[in-house]
Amino acid sequence: MKSNFKFTLSYDGSRYFGWEHQPNTELTIQGKLERVLSGITGMPEGDVKVIGAGRTDAGVHARAMVANAFLDTELREDALLNEMNRFLPDDISINEVKICSPRFHARYNAIGKTYRYSCYFGTRKPVFERKYLSILSGRPDVDAMKRAAEFLVGEHDFRSFCGNTHFKKSTIRKIDHLEITEKTCHIRMYFHGNGFLQNQVRIMVGTLLDVGFGKLAAEDIPEILEARDRGRAGHTAEARGLCLMKVDYE
Amino acid sequence: MKSNFKFTLSYDGSRYFGWEHQPNTELTIQGKLERVLSGITGMPEGDVKVIGAGRTDAGVHARAMVANAFLDTELREDALLNEMNRFLPDDISINEVKICSPRFHARYNAIGKTYRYSCYFGTRKPVFERKYLSILSGRPDVDAMKRAAEFLVGEHDFRSFCGNTHFKKSTIRKIDHLEITEKTCHIRMYFHGNGFLQNQVRIMVGTLLDVGFGKLAAEDIPEILEARDRGRAGHTAEARGLCLMKVDYE
Repeated sequence: MKSNFKFTLSYDGSRYFGWEHQPNTELTIQGKLERVLSGITGMPEGDVKVIGAGRTDAGVHARAMVANAFLDTELREDALLNEMNRFLPDDISINEVKICSPRFHARYNAIGKTYRYSCYFGTRKPVFERKYLSILSGRPDVDAMKRAAEFLVGEHDFRSFCGNTHFKKSTIRKIDHLEITEKTCHIRMYFHGNGFLQNQVRIMVGTLLDVGFGKLAAEDIPEILEARDRGRAGHTAEARGLCLMKVDYE
Repeated sequence: MKSNFKFTLSYDGSRYFGWEHQPNTELTIQGKLERVLSGITGMPEGDVKVIGAGRTDAGVHARAMVANAFLDTELREDALLNEMNRFLPDDISINEVKICSPRFHARYNAIGKTYRYSCYFGTRKPVFERKYLSILSGRPDVDAMKRAAEFLVGEHDFRSFCGNTHFKKSTIRKIDHLEITEKTCHIRMYFHGNGFLQNQVRIMVGTLLDVGFGKLAAEDIPEILEARDRGRAGHTAEARGLCLMKVDYE
């Protein structure tokens, strides 16, 4: 009799090829979790399927990813948490384990996500945070970035901000909060929305930074959205600055 | 005509065999600095001698190490800083460069140093800080550690806390401040003194933790100091939790 386990976890994505299991490498978060859960439960490797709330890109971090898996085990929640943390490498931490309804699905039931993107433009090299920051060549015009950000808030067709140009389904998403903060040479951008397309956050960040450095105008954003063409938006910001902060459920 | 340059630098010591240049490996902080300075100035490698305020062990970090070197270069302070940061790896940052008196010697003129040791005992694995924390198996008795720490403050013969058991010179040192703080599963120990023997901070930390976990009593410390025997003090705490925070000069 399998139970449906819900996991909340953190990871430093630096050395991983992203969340999603890949056949030719085990260095994915999902792959690591499935292998460790197979070892703990004794279930065959192919039978353990870990469903994540989203599929973070290579190099992207998470503070509170949510996932679920149906497991055939006698272990209770805390015992499973301890066993998982014992066998997982030190750049993946299971923070919570809960047995939940068989109907819970980490991806389908997610109703919102918060991402944070962190940049730094100081003269000192940030040696202790270097894997979690994107280094900028100077201070961007943060006011222009804030003006541009306002155009992204709301329900829009974000096709211009979708990394998968062959994506067949709807590219309409809603961003209800986009905040940009600046403090001692650190710029942080917080995005909350009901869901994000492939690379969407990184393309939005790249576009906002292009505005900040004068390559685009804040007032170009409505036209970029309108165009529904990836070629019109800015560059894809590097992965290391991005972190999934929270996943919301009803 | 050589000038005497004073450097303030930070480094993540995780992948280095410590500060001190070693003949068989270039992976030391001093070795990296000397190689980069030789490349920038055109001086032969053997002619560039970087003098550090102290010699941090393998794996120990620094937020504000101070060093000096006599360099034959036309470069001014800021230009040299930029060139050094450009050629140094991203786990070493030069934060300040100043031309100083030819009489300045980073080690001989240092009159005080502050070290911080960081431990963590939470159930969540600290994935983003894991290289800068020592993981404890549970919460130690912090009050007992504080009582033990009081016995270490003052001028004492710290031979029992010296990693080099064949050390010939005086092992008398003065610790004028030792503070232990606890906050959300993090314990931090701050040491300020006029100088520290080899491994002294790590042996003091290991001894305080041994008190915290009941292997030693706080009241054993005076006898341990008295014994002048490395075998009487506690274990040597691991390097990753240690960071040189500041070096004082007149």
